Order: sequence, then C-alpha cells, then structure tokens
Amino acid sequence: MKKMIKVGIVGGSGYTGGELLRLLSFHPGAEVVAVTSRRFDGIPVSSVHAHLGKIYDLCFENLSLGEVAGRCDVVFTAVPHGSAMNMVPELLDSTMVIDLSADYRLPPMVFEQVYGLTHCDSREAVYGIPELYDVAGHALIANPGCYPTGAILAAAPLASERLLTSVVFDSKSGISGAGAEPTAVSHYPNMAENIQAYKLTTHRHTAEIVQELTRFDETLHSICFTPHIIPSVRGILTTAHLFTKKQLTSEEAVHLYKEFYRDKPFIRLRENVPSLPGVRGSNFCDIHIEVDKATNRVVVISVIDNLVKGASGQAIQNMNKMFNLDEVTGLWYGGLAP
Amino acid sequence: MKKMIKVGIVGGSGYTGGELLRLLSFHPGAEVVAVTSRRFDGIPVSSVHAHLGKIYDLCFENLSLGEVAGRCDVVFTAVPHGSAMNMVPELLDSTMVIDLSADYRLPPMVFEQVYGLTHCDSREAVYGIPELYDVAGHALIANPGCYPTGAILAAAPLASERLLTSVVFDSKSGISGAGAEPTAVSHYPNMAENIQAYKLTTHRHTAEIVQELTRFDETLHSICFTPHIIPSVRGILTTAHLFTKKQLTSEEAVHLYKEFYRDKPFIRLRENVPSLPGVRGSNFCDIHIEVDKATNRVVVISVIDNLVKGASGQAIQNMNKMFNLDEVTGLWYGGLAP
Amino acid sequence: MKKMIKVGIVGGSGYTGGELLRLLSFHPGAEVVAVTSRRFDGIPVSSVHAHLGKIYDLCFENLSLGEVAGRCDVVFTAVPHGSAMNMVPELLDSTMVIDLSADYRLPPMVFEQVYGLTHCDSREAVYGIPELYDVAGHALIANPGCYPTGAILAAAPLASERLLTSVVFDSKSGISGAGAEPTAVSHYPNMAENIQAYKLTTHRHTAEIVQELTRFDETLHSICFTPHIIPSVRGILTTAHLFTKKQLTSEEAVHLYKEFYRDKPFIRLRENVPSLPGVRGSNFCDIHIEVDKATNRVVVISVIDNLVKGASGQAIQNMNKMFNLDEVTGLWYGGLAP
Amino acid sequence: MKKMIKVGIVGGSGYTGGELLRLLSFHPGAEVVAVTSRRFDGIPVSSVHAHLGKIYDLCFENLSLGEVAGRCDVVFTAVPHGSAMNMVPELLDSTMVIDLSADYRLPPMVFEQVYGLTHCDSREAVYGIPELYDVAGHALIANPGCYPTGAILAAAPLASERLLTSVVFDSKSGISGAGAEPTAVSHYPNMAENIQAYKLTTHRHTAEIVQELTRFDETLHSICFTPHIIPSVRGILTTAHLFTKKQLTSEEAVHLYKEFYRDKPFIRLRENVPSLPGVRGSNFCDIHIEVDKATNRVVVISVIDNLVKGASGQAIQNMNKMFNLDEVTGLWYGGLAP
Repeated sequence: MKKMIKVGIVGGSGYTGGELLRLLSFHPGAEVVAVTSRRFDGIPVSSVHAHLGKIYDLCFENLSLGEVAGRCDVVFTAVPHGSAMNMVPELLDSTMVIDLSADYRLPPMVFEQVYGLTHCDSREAVYGIPELYDVAGHALIANPGCYPTGAILAAAPLASERLLTSVVFDSKSGISGAGAEPTAVSHYPNMAENIQAYKLTTHRHTAEIVQELTRFDETLHSICFTPHIIPSVRGILTTAHLFTKKQLTSEEAVHLYKEFYRDKPFIRLRENVPSLPGVRGSNFCDIHIEVDKATNRVVVISVIDNLVKGASGQAIQNMNKMFNLDEVTGLWYGGLAP
Repeated sequence: MKKMIKVGIVGGSGYTGGELLRLLSFHPGAEVVAVTSRRFDGIPVSSVHAHLGKIYDLCFENLSLGEVAGRCDVVFTAVPHGSAMNMVPELLDSTMVIDLSADYRLPPMVFEQVYGLTHCDSREAVYGIPELYDVAGHALIANPGCYPTGAILAAAPLASERLLTSVVFDSKSGISGAGAEPTAVSHYPNMAENIQAYKLTTHRHTAEIVQELTRFDETLHSICFTPHIIPSVRGILTTAHLFTKKQLTSEEAVHLYKEFYRDKPFIRLRENVPSLPGVRGSNFCDIHIEVDKATNRVVVISVIDNLVKGASGQAIQNMNKMFNLDEVTGLWYGGLAP
Repeated sequence: MKKMIKVGIVGGSGYTGGELLRLLSFHPGAEVVAVTSRRFDGIPVSSVHAHLGKIYDLCFENLSLGEVAGRCDVVFTAVPHGSAMNMVPELLDSTMVIDLSADYRLPPMVFEQVYGLTHCDSREAVYGIPELYDVAGHALIANPGCYPTGAILAAAPLASERLLTSVVFDSKSGISGAGAEPTAVSHYPNMAENIQAYKLTTHRHTAEIVQELTRFDETLHSICFTPHIIPSVRGILTTAHLFTKKQLTSEEAVHLYKEFYRDKPFIRLRENVPSLPGVRGSNFCDIHIEVDKATNRVVVISVIDNLVKGASGQAIQNMNKMFNLDEVTGLWYGGLAP
Repeated sequence: MKKMIKVGIVGGSGYTGGELLRLLSFHPGAEVVAVTSRRFDGIPVSSVHAHLGKIYDLCFENLSLGEVAGRCDVVFTAVPHGSAMNMVPELLDSTMVIDLSADYRLPPMVFEQVYGLTHCDSREAVYGIPELYDVAGHALIANPGCYPTGAILAAAPLASERLLTSVVFDSKSGISGAGAEPTAVSHYPNMAENIQAYKLTTHRHTAEIVQELTRFDETLHSICFTPHIIPSVRGILTTAHLFTKKQLTSEEAVHLYKEFYRDKPFIRLRENVPSLPGVRGSNFCDIHIEVDKATNRVVVISVIDNLVKGASGQAIQNMNKMFNLDEVTGLWYGGLAP
C-alpha cells in the first residue's frame, strides 16, 4: 500500500490554511493529520471552513510544536509574519517545514529592515519558486509572497539574460490576499465597483522581487512595484513593463520565455492575454508577452491565483518536490471557469 | 489495471460541456475520448476552454452519432432543447446516454406544451436526481434542470409526507445558467450591482417542479416559482416558502429532513444559513430549515452550484450510479471558498 | 430672495447621514447648517465623506440638542434605534424632526417587543410614506424602514381593496443597508458572487409591514417577509407574491395600481420588469405587476434605492411636504445608469 | 426670465448620449430640445434610458442635420469615430458643436494613421480639456478620450515643467467605456471577478496622450500606455509612473500640482489615495501624488468617471465655457458613494 505523507498545518483557520486543506483533499499521496488553532481548539475544521463540510472530520487542536512535529512528515506554518521564526527551529528538530510567512524569504537583516521586527533565527531556507530553484533536499522552504511569485515569473526569463534596464510591476490583486478579517478596505461597499491602489512605493514585497531579480542580474537597479486591489476574491494579474537594453522582436521575446520555462508544467505561455478565471483555484501561472514597437519595452502579463500558485498550491508543489513526488501530484487541474 | 469508462460529450463548447470536461478531469474511473462540435471541428478543446489548457490534449471533432456511440460507454448530450431527441434514439443503439437537455424530463405532451416544440421520441427516461430515484440500470437518464434540482431537494421531505398546502419557490441564480453567449441581460453594466427578476410566473422549469412534487403528493396544487438572476457567475439559492397543513416545530422539521436525506452524501444539512461559496464548483446541495412561528410556514434555503449539482456534476453522479461506482467518485471535494 | 430651510443632521457620519448631505446638495430650497458627530467633532464633513470634497466646507460639531434645534428649521435624526427617543422630545421644543431610526414607527409597546428596548416617549408620529399619508402639518415624522418602503408600496393597492388573502415578501437588498461598519457579512470575499438569506422569519421590519398593511385590511393575517443581501451596494428589489381572494386579470391589476398611484410623482409603473440601476441614487420606486394564471397570485416587483427612497431621499420628500414645497423639489432626477 | 441654452444630441441612444441626458437634467441653464436616432425614431427617450423615466418626455427623432442645427444653440455629436466628420461641417453652418468622437482630436494625418480611416475635414478644433485649454470662443470643441483625460491630468504638471524622462500609464477602466452593445468581453461571466488587460502596446488613445504631453515638452519620447478593464461599470483609475530628471521631494511634487491646478474647480488633490466611488457620477478628477524614494519616480493616481469627466460631463463643462457660464454650472455635486 502507498505510503501517505503525514501533513500538519500550524495556523489552519485563515485563508491560506483553509486553502491548504482544500487542495490537500485532492492529493493522492498526502493526508492532513493535524491542524492547530488556539482559538478554535476542539472545533471541527468544517465549522470554520464551511465549504469543507463532510470532506474533513478533523478538529482544530491546540497542540505544542513537539506534538505537531511528532505526528507529521512535514508541517506547513501558515502564521503571521514574525511568528514562524519562533516555531521553525523546534519543528525542524523532528520534521520538515514549509513556511508560508515572510520570515525566511529574506536575509534576517533585510527582513528586520522591511518588516520592522527583530529576527531570532539566522538559518537559511530555499526560496520556494520551484520553477527557479531546486527545492528538493531542503528541510526548510520559504514559500514566496503572492505578488513576488507573479512578478518574478513574469520577468525572470529576461532578467536571467541580463537584458533589462528597468522594470515597473503594476500588480492587481484580489482581496483575499488581505486575509479573512473584515477591514474598511474589504468592506463590500468600499470595494465593489472600485479599484484601490495602495502602498504605491513602499510595499514590503518589493524586497523579495528585488532580491530575486538581482540574483539574475546584479546591475538591475530600477525595480518599481505598485500594488492595487481589485473587486475580485482571488487572483493576481501583474502587468510587467520591462524595459530592455535593445529592441527585441516578438519572436525573440517569446522564444526566450519558451526556452526558460521548457518542462515547467505549471507555466502556460499564452497567445492571447490571459485573465483570472483561467487560473482560479488552480496552480497554473499563465503568461503572455508583447513587444512595444515604439519603445524598448516588453509588456508581460502574468496571472496566478494568489491563494494557490501565490501561496498554498505552490507550498504543495514544494512539498511534492521535497518528497520526490512528481511536482504536479494532486495539483493537476485547470481553473474554475466560468 | 482498472477499466476506465469511455465518455463522449456531444456539444462540448458551452458551459455545461466545459464543466463536464473540468469535472471529469478529476475522475479516477472515466476518461473523455470524444468531444463533438461542428463549429470548432479540429480545434483543441483548450482553445475554447482556456482554463483547461495543458489538462486536455483533445480536439473537438465533427463526428456522426454512430462514431461517438461506437467509441464510448456513455455519451452526455449537452445540446439545446429540441436537439437531443433527434440524437438519443440512435445513440442508444450502441451506448448509454445522459441527456442534459430538457427533452426527456417531461412526458412528450407536457414537453410540447411547455417548450412549444414537437416531440419525436416517446421513450421514457428516469429523472436524474439520484437522491430521489434509483437511476442504476437505466440506459437513458434525463438530467434535471438547475432550478428544479434546488427547488425539489428543498421541498421533497415535506412533500413526501404530504404535509404541504402551498409552496412559493423564490429562486436566485447566477448568470452562467443563461449560457456562454453574450446578451443584453449578461452585459456587465446591466448585471453588476443589480438583480433581475424574469418570467415571474411562466418559467418553463415550473413544469418539472410541479411534476416531481405532485408525484409525492398529487393533492398539492399551489406551486409557485419565480426566478431571478443575481450578479454571480455560479450558484442557485432557492428560498422555499413552504406552507404546511399544521404547525411544525423546528425539531420536527429538521428531523424529517435528516431522515429523508440519511445516507445521501451530497446533501449537507446546515445549522447556519448556507450560501454560494460553500458549494461553488462542488456537487453538494446545502440545506437549512427554519419554522416561522407566526404562520404555518417552513422556510427552507437550498444552495447548489448550477453548473455542478444543477447540471454537469449531477450528470456525473448519475453516470457513477449507472456504472455501479460509488456515487461520490471523482466528485468528493468541497466548494471553492473564499 | 428665497428663504432657505435650515437643516440639521444629528449623526452625520454614517451612510444615511452622508446620503442626506449628498442629496441636500441638490436641493434649491434647503441648506445644511449643522451636522453633529461626537467622534468626528471638528473634522471636515468631506474627510469622512470623501465623495463630498469641495461640495461642503462644513465640519462635524459636537453640539447639544438645544444648539442644533436653535440653528435649524428641521432636524434629521440619523442615529441608532433606541437613541432617537432620547433626543426627539427636546428637539421638538424648538424645531421639527424627521427621525430616520425605528423609534417612532411603531407604538411603544410593539417597539419594545420587537426591538427589545424600553421606550421612553409615548408621543405619536406620522409614518412617513408620503404616497400613503399626508405628512404635512406634522412636527414629527417617523421615516420608514427600507424594506417596509419597498414592500408596502408593492402591496398597498391590493391591500387597500381588501383583496389579499396572504402575502410573501421575498426581498433582496444591497449591503449598504447594513451600515458603514465592516462585518463578516460585508467582507468582500464573503459577499461577492454570493447571496445571503438571513433572519428568514424574524426580521424586525416585519412589524412595520404588518402594521401598515393591516391598517388597510385588518383581516389580513398571513404576512410573510424574508430578506436577503445581494452583492450590490445599493438597492432593494422586493418580489411580492400576493395571493388574492379572486383571480384578477392583468388589466384589472394594473388598472388598480394606476389609480392608486395617480399623481404620485415618485412611483413609476413599468411595463417591463424593473431593476436596480433605474433607481440607483434616485427617489423613484419602480413597480411592475404580473398575474399568475395558474394560481390566484399577483407577482409585484418593486425596486428602490434603499438609501434614497428607502431612507434619506424619502426623508427629504417628507421635509418638502412638511414645508409645503413641491414634494419633488431637489429630488427630480433619474437613476445612475449604467 | 433666464435664457436657456437649447441643446441637441446627435446619437442619443448610447452610453454617452444617455449620460448627456442624465447630466443635463441637472443643468439650470440648458435644456435638451432634440435627440436624434435613426433606429429609435419616434420612441420615447425613456424607453431606451429607463432610468430617465418621467424625467424626459422627449422622443428620439430622425432629423436632418439642418433640422437639428436649426433648433439648437449647440449640438453634441455622440456618434462613432469616422461619422462625426461627415456631420460637423454642416452643423457648424448654423450652430456650435462639441464632438465626443475622436474625429477632431488629432491632426487629420495622425487620425488617419491611428484609426485607419480617411479624414474628410481639415478644420481644427480645440482639444477640450478645460483645465489645459481656453475653450471659450471656439465653435468646435473636440472632447477628449476617457483614458487621455485621466492620464494627461495626472502628468501635465510635471510635463509642463519639462521634468519628465519617461512615463508609464497603467490604466484601469470600468467596462462602460466599451459601450452599450454586449460582447464577449462584457459578458458577465467573463468580466466578474476578473481584470482584462488589452491592446497592451497599441491602444489608439496613446496618440492623444503623446500629442498633449509633447506639447508641454517636445523632448519627452518614452510615453507608454497599457489599458485594462476591471469589474466596474464606471470609472478610470490611472496609475502614472512618472520618471523625473531629478529626485523631487514629496513637498515639491505636491506643491507643483497645487500651483498648476489652482482655481481648477474639478481637480481635487487628495492626501489619501483616491478611488472610484468618490467621483462616480460626478465631474471631479481626484489626484494623489507620491514620490518613490528608491528611484526617480513620482507615482500619481488619478480617478475620474469615464462617462462624466471622461466624456459627457467634460462636454458639458466645455459647453459652459463656450457660453460663458461658470464652468461648474449643473455639474457641482460629488460622487455617488457608497
């Protein structure tokens, strides 16, 4: 009989925790054996995540880190920034960890500057975009931010060729990225029929984008990122305005992306401009490339589901590679459209 | 090695055809071997259904009925009302059929009156709500309409006890029920931030609802149905105002539903009022029951995904029973929420 | 020079207060001279209501009741239920009052039962639906609830003829009716692409509806009301299922409504089913009537903007009548469509 | 008695025609005396624009140009690109014209290249952004495109100081900009919960933007524009990424905008990032400015209602100046929020 990966989720009551549960219910090689929550201790998982009624019998538990680690082959930490660093060291004593917070995505010093928090754990993690890094063999994976996933995948092929002079990422995200707690921004009358630009020049995800693109090309200095929230629950569309050192033809640009993403199952290069329904609920990243004839600009559109490829789905893709499964295991389905 | 059910889809370019494809991609015991379309002959399925890119290599084919039937163990007919009756007799010569049109849901005379079309095939089909009928052993299943599925499941337990005097179904549907072709109603500026009541007293689905409820209780005469379209792509919420012969307590009413739907995996009785995200993309029907203390009224709320439990998912549930599989095979997942 | 009505608003920071300000900016015969708020004392009105930037120079003030009354010819109280009764007596000493809360809509004993609060003021007010009552000459007007406005206007012509046996109001409201404070229900991911039924049999507005319809016909006992929230900011569509003592023809029904609403400028009888954009931002109530041939049912659809005809616009219409202005003054414009 | 401007609308059945009617109903100094439509000849205006029921008694008429011109002091041409040029010369013989099409926004040669149509009228018009041009005294005003209005107003203060090196306009528009005819893009299931980038590098409005910004600074060569459609009926939010020759402080940038837009009533400079509800249905353009500390970038957010300041409202503002009225006449109200 097939051995199942035993999975734990620390912090299972939010959107990324709920999405891990939803996605893992499709996974033929993994089963969730523990979901922690202090607030919902003893409450059925499906009382909080009503959509999972009858799918899970599991209850939230208020477990110690040792208890979780003891039960599981891998633990997903879906906790606020600044919390994971207090859990990961102990968890790693006896299990593997995929951290969905920001704590291990940046060097501690950069993290402290960007997040305004003191870091207490200097260990390194692999940055978990499996299209760019070989994450197999790592015990700790830093699952990337949602915006950086869309932005980096849109620009990586050109950055890796050191062709870029400056880039403007203008990103549009569904509001689920802001979490399950109601706020003024998420208040329906404020968000419906609207679009809200925010943190025009100061969003913390900028640091991840800069870090990853300058690994490809340390001379790339002008990296701009401005996020917006659109009236959509899920999805991020990134419009990447990529200025190049020389004018490329469309064919050259497309060819470069095809080569770069050859054998990457979750990247779909599109002839038409993609949009959110195509990836809704799925782990795909759809990418489209056009060249501006008037300026040295390549416009790349990438779309992902922020909760899947931008969070929990990518985390499971990382888990698959960590355990030497085919990376598409349990993730091989298209978007919910219409 | 496990034997796969070979599936054909006649009319695969619309929403129900696309949804059959999407849902069957999860099914471990069935594979789609033919999808017909005259208009898209030779075009990849994923060119029309972009969300299924990389999931299907299949192309649409302009096949004769004999060719489809010859390849398949079962054929889903996802064609306009009035078309299926011209296909089903020939298909049934060599395969099984699940018809998603209205052609076999009503006796031919009733059909002709309601749809204003001449019927050319007098054979009977089983009405495919598997919670109410044993569909196994039938070669032809008439898959129910979306509104009737939600309405009938909301009222059946009380109707079967012959407790009802009159019923008002006030239903609210997502707009995907109106199909993939743009119309004035589906024009975004007309539908956003709106709700559109239509066919207030004359919707054709009324006939199915009346037929099924009067099978339970032929004395039930006052059955009203008024549909609305809401700014949602998927989902039907039915508010069933059910007037009873005597005042029931809440406990009695809930008990009755629990007994009636015991062992029906896709019915989830809910303590809280359910809503659409809980069933979005899934085959569940969530039901909630309250008793009006002031009048002899039981208010039942049922929610389904109109394209899944209201169409393609229920069709696959029917297929499972037709082939003696567990009815949940390939359908056991919760809604896409948030 | 024309004399302007001096208007005060007690509680100006919420949606109905903001809407009074917005609508009064169109009014040629009234000007807002005081807007109170404890929380925003000294803050410009346009800091809270950004859409009114440059339109109002006014600041919120933390005024005593005497100060407000002293400055104004009429005061609108846009405060929570249970608060107005503590303000109205003092205000009435020196000004007129239009109360947008529920405090004076019901007899104190009924109010106490429905709202679970003790009432401290037994004075009577006129119920402010100007299509039904002559509000001129009253110093205190109880502005009706949003749902009751739509429901009562839909049924009044038949009720006044004592033709009804039972009625089911199935109402669908935009979410602005729930106020400006973020809640789980108003959280965008919970409300988008959804519809939420609530208080299926127990909504407090039922009492107003019952009170007003039984004034027309004290034998009418079966009055049911079930509300829903739809993904729309503004608007209420009421589906009134009206069961009649005898079968009416369409012509009879329509004729009855035409007679009843002759010379009522804000009622528009529609040949097509109306919807929300037609009344968005305006004080109209659009009504459509159909007769169900199969049952003794008249289906009436009424649509209003819940913040205008359902609250602040109707309040201004009441003010106009109170001051013997043409009732359409400052309110004569159509909906914001598309 | 006050003399009223007699207004004609050629092409009154679309969104901009309907919006002219809606907005002119507020105007104290103008009245619509003729609305032409071949298709709806003899039909009441309020049959097509249901929201204007009871507001207008007018019917559409199939009038000759001479008849329209003979009745009116000014004619708005709200017709497709390429049609206006065939009407304007004759209209100008006896009336003034404000053209809402693209025909007179660009020099004929540029127009022909951009729109792929032959131009037949070489007369010049003034480009109708009244914040930038003195339109009084002109008999023909070319009313600007919706995207250009938002983009040009966002960048003009910096362009006029010749401070810019390159600009990227990333614009997000409500779908009403695409007109009243249903299309695949406007189909609700395609647009809801989505965002659609299109014409990434080739939108025709680019020419207007380039024309107007290079009038300020003929050395500005890198002007990029990429449009998107968001799930909103109305509104355009433009994110202007403006790269400057030198690093500006926030104070310098804001000061520059304040000076440039001093005495421009419809420009509201905002301390917080503005969004669409603040301007919905109104003629305001709200603008917010931030400086990116890391790069020489000023990020400017501008929001307008595409049908008002982006079309019909600006046209009326132009009319006001043409007739030496205060430019805010009939336009002085805030947005419809919530």
